[in-house]
Amino acid sequence: MQILSSAQNPQIKELVRLQTSRRERRERGLFVLEGARISMEAADSGVVIEKFFFSPKGAQRYPQVVAHLTEVAGEIYQISDQLAQKIGDSVNPQGIFCLCRCLDNLFTADKIKGDGHYLAVYGLQDPGNLGTIIRSCDAFGADGLILSEDCPDLYSPKVLRGSMGGFFRLPVYLTADMGRTVGILREGGIPVYAAALSPDSSSVLQTDLSGGACVMIGNEGSGLPQEMIDCCSGSLIIPMTPQAESLNAAVAASVILWEMFRGGQH
Amino acid sequence: MQILSSAQNPQIKELVRLQTSRRERRERGLFVLEGARISMEAADSGVVIEKFFFSPKGAQRYPQVVAHLTEVAGEIYQISDQLAQKIGDSVNPQGIFCLCRCLDNLFTADKIKGDGHYLAVYGLQDPGNLGTIIRSCDAFGADGLILSEDCPDLYSPKVLRGSMGGFFRLPVYLTADMGRTVGILREGGIPVYAAALSPDSSSVLQTDLSGGACVMIGNEGSGLPQEMIDCCSGSLIIPMTPQAESLNAAVAASVILWEMFRGGQH
Repeated sequence: MQILSSAQNPQIKELVRLQTSRRERRERGLFVLEGARISMEAADSGVVIEKFFFSPKGAQRYPQVVAHLTEVAGEIYQISDQLAQKIGDSVNPQGIFCLCRCLDNLFTADKIKGDGHYLAVYGLQDPGNLGTIIRSCDAFGADGLILSEDCPDLYSPKVLRGSMGGFFRLPVYLTADMGRTVGILREGGIPVYAAALSPDSSSVLQTDLSGGACVMIGNEGSGLPQEMIDCCSGSLIIPMTPQAESLNAAVAASVILWEMFRGGQH
Repeated sequence: MQILSSAQNPQIKELVRLQTSRRERRERGLFVLEGARISMEAADSGVVIEKFFFSPKGAQRYPQVVAHLTEVAGEIYQISDQLAQKIGDSVNPQGIFCLCRCLDNLFTADKIKGDGHYLAVYGLQDPGNLGTIIRSCDAFGADGLILSEDCPDLYSPKVLRGSMGGFFRLPVYLTADMGRTVGILREGGIPVYAAALSPDSSSVLQTDLSGGACVMIGNEGSGLPQEMIDCCSGSLIIPMTPQAESLNAAVAASVILWEMFRGGQH
């Protein structure tokens, strides 16, 4: 097998474009995974791996991973250790890259369970927070995550890393019209609550989330806009000490997910 | 007043050294705050501001803040907008910098309340996580946070920013010997629980944290070392779905803090 060593090789240029450009990912419907563990999780969950790239160091360090990915991937490329280091996103690159087909993230009414627990996220800014939220959704058994289109790209390397594999187990839906999506959920019998730092909000402890429910959280700095709160069935707040003003957005989402989950854990 | 415009000015060099070097902060017992809001919170909570630097743009945008800080600070310096931009840490610098005296972070037995709720953090790596943990401690009414010395520096700009002012309201203690500190807490009647992803751990829902209690969390990747778990009164775990392996460290700490807080909120 030929070993690719130039960053100018068309295969490598495609890989780098998909790593760095959201538009490229969206237009092509492809994304890049880097690292042994996350690539194996993707393969195990049935993600289509179109191309697999590995370096000699990667093959030496993860022989079983490389053997398995070589079997399931469409095309296989060997790259030099130097090139792997160059295009690697992390501090300690593992020399394993998969070019994968994006999942089906289309929101449709028939995908929603009437007794399910959902989190909706509107206008989030930080990819680290999104990755953490996906990880918490997975850990606390959410049935799905609904994202507005202006959230960080689901397929960016930072989100994928932060989700710690939760990404492949959790249904994630993207919506260009969150107001309409809220309407569909409510028509389907799922109350939708806006997380809002307002004196009108009910405490999450006084809100019954045990049946089907969806909670929506907003932007790190500005929360949810009023028109989005108005679409919802009601609004809720996590009680805090009086001097504190707010929580980190990923923490707020996680505490709400924990409250949905904890009822069934006693 | 003379306007400082050179990054070579000794006052500016001191400021930049304190922004960037943990060792410098520790040796001098000083740290730097940047921004209008956090500087006002520091002033309001009695932090000693030794030197205050502001730019013309800062004075124009935050006249009341600049007036107040000019009154309380020891020495006042005006700097050019260009220099403020250059030494500013954030994307959108506000032209306001305070050189402040570090707080008293010494852990001593007499500072501990027998019925208090504490979080201990051992070997954390990410400054963003530490900032988020401080913010959650403040929001959920923790009586104090105890940090091992190998955690990120409490006075680094990223930690200060992430804590959203919680930093000035929360007693934070640094300890060079966490095992000994755990012993002091336990002698003072406070049970200390290790957060550990182990089948031997009790569910946080079956652990009584309503009296005085301290929970210790560990490193993002490796958790707590066994010798630290062995120092504790017991270990606890946050229940999760079987497929998930762990939570983000700041989320795990926040869910535990929420569990300590929520009992009193019904």
